[in-house]
Amino acid sequence: MAIDPIRAVDDEARQLARTLLRTVRAAALATLDVETHGTQTRGPFASLVSTANDADGAPIILISRLSGHTANLEADPRCSLLITQTGKGDPLAHPRMTLVATGHPLARDSEAGLRVRRRFLARHPKAQLYVDFPDFAFWCLDIARISLNGGFGKAYEPSPADILTDLTGAEAILAAEDGAIAHMNADHADAARLYATALLGATDGPWRVTGVDPDGIDLALGEQVLRLPFPHRVTTPGDLRATLAERAAAARAK
Amino acid sequence: MAIDPIRAVDDEARQLARTLLRTVRAAALATLDVETHGTQTRGPFASLVSTANDADGAPIILISRLSGHTANLEADPRCSLLITQTGKGDPLAHPRMTLVATGHPLARDSEAGLRVRRRFLARHPKAQLYVDFPDFAFWCLDIARISLNGGFGKAYEPSPADILTDLTGAEAILAAEDGAIAHMNADHADAARLYATALLGATDGPWRVTGVDPDGIDLALGEQVLRLPFPHRVTTPGDLRATLAERAAAARAK
Repeated sequence: MAIDPIRAVDDEARQLARTLLRTVRAAALATLDVETHGTQTRGPFASLVSTANDADGAPIILISRLSGHTANLEADPRCSLLITQTGKGDPLAHPRMTLVATGHPLARDSEAGLRVRRRFLARHPKAQLYVDFPDFAFWCLDIARISLNGGFGKAYEPSPADILTDLTGAEAILAAEDGAIAHMNADHADAARLYATALLGATDGPWRVTGVDPDGIDLALGEQVLRLPFPHRVTTPGDLRATLAERAAAARAK
Repeated sequence: MAIDPIRAVDDEARQLARTLLRTVRAAALATLDVETHGTQTRGPFASLVSTANDADGAPIILISRLSGHTANLEADPRCSLLITQTGKGDPLAHPRMTLVATGHPLARDSEAGLRVRRRFLARHPKAQLYVDFPDFAFWCLDIARISLNGGFGKAYEPSPADILTDLTGAEAILAAEDGAIAHMNADHADAARLYATALLGATDGPWRVTGVDPDGIDLALGEQVLRLPFPHRVTTPGDLRATLAERAAAARAK
């Protein structure tokens, strides 16, 4: 008697997958090894990459040509990214997610390249030291298949649409992102702090906003990253302001 | 002008690689995906595995047939394991190591199967809950190639012999391992604690010995794992006793 170990995707699973996706700073990348010896086909190769997200949530990685994974992706762009949430006790008791994907490099001075550079540096300020080295490049991963594991016996297979953010009609939000982030961090640092502590249970500190999109905002403090999802999808700067104010009021009421 | 980014392997690199290898609890496994759709060849798949080490240091993993990686390994045993040491700041500033390997399953009741089960449970006591489920099996990874990165600009390619423990002539140590561990934990718990705090800089607590081999001992406290390397290779129970006593004396003298 075979029991299907895969559960139906519900809101809780979707939210877990979105949070894992949007809070990743480092992940394991699997590529096909160009250095595979003695075999006809290329074998798997696992390496560490630092990661952030494009506005729709797609993972972006900053990789060097001095590392094997760049040559591997250039020869075959198929890859897989493992995102884990570590913690105490049995490693298998914690959530993790495998993305099966195809990578594509982003031209440094393209609109996407500049947007991704800004979003990546907001999450990894120390990468400023090497982001412009000629051997480094940003790659974006197009997700084909997802395997989510929320802990023992909690396996799901969400679709890319379950975890990515629909950007349709949200051009005004994306265009205003830079200004919205600067405004929040300069004039509403108290609100960012409240989102982190009162709504997301984090310890207090100078939390800053690092990303804004139709589904929520990203917050960071040192190496900690948090995701504040919005109660509804936001596509205009007016609704963004109202939603951020409503979330701050909800936080104050706690 | 091409500069070779790979440094010559020295004692420090060898020690770092051995410590990473021997203290791993969870790692990212890259396999070739049997579910790859729409392509002629199998793509890469990254997943989380919990890990321990056989007596020579070879990684052992405990995996379930309900997870995709088992089917992947059964179809093609080539794999790669990423071992990382996480910490504060830039993810790329911390040591990590990629092993390119081939997996082989261990028969449950074979001598190797029983030894590996004991060593795995010493590192992961909570795995007792599921280790004997029929869908779970131990696999051992035979290392073919190693890529060690000690942080920015510190890339090395140690050989398997650089990081594995030579067991030649050490049969008496391996046969005595069970008894030596029980004796240490029952009668010399103070020594295990001293090794951890005085020699390895860990915080105090009821550290216990979980493994003994010719090159050193493994220590654990909850989810923390430490490696105490011996100053010289040990092959007899007499030398083991003397070396453990000498290490305790060195710890007390600190």
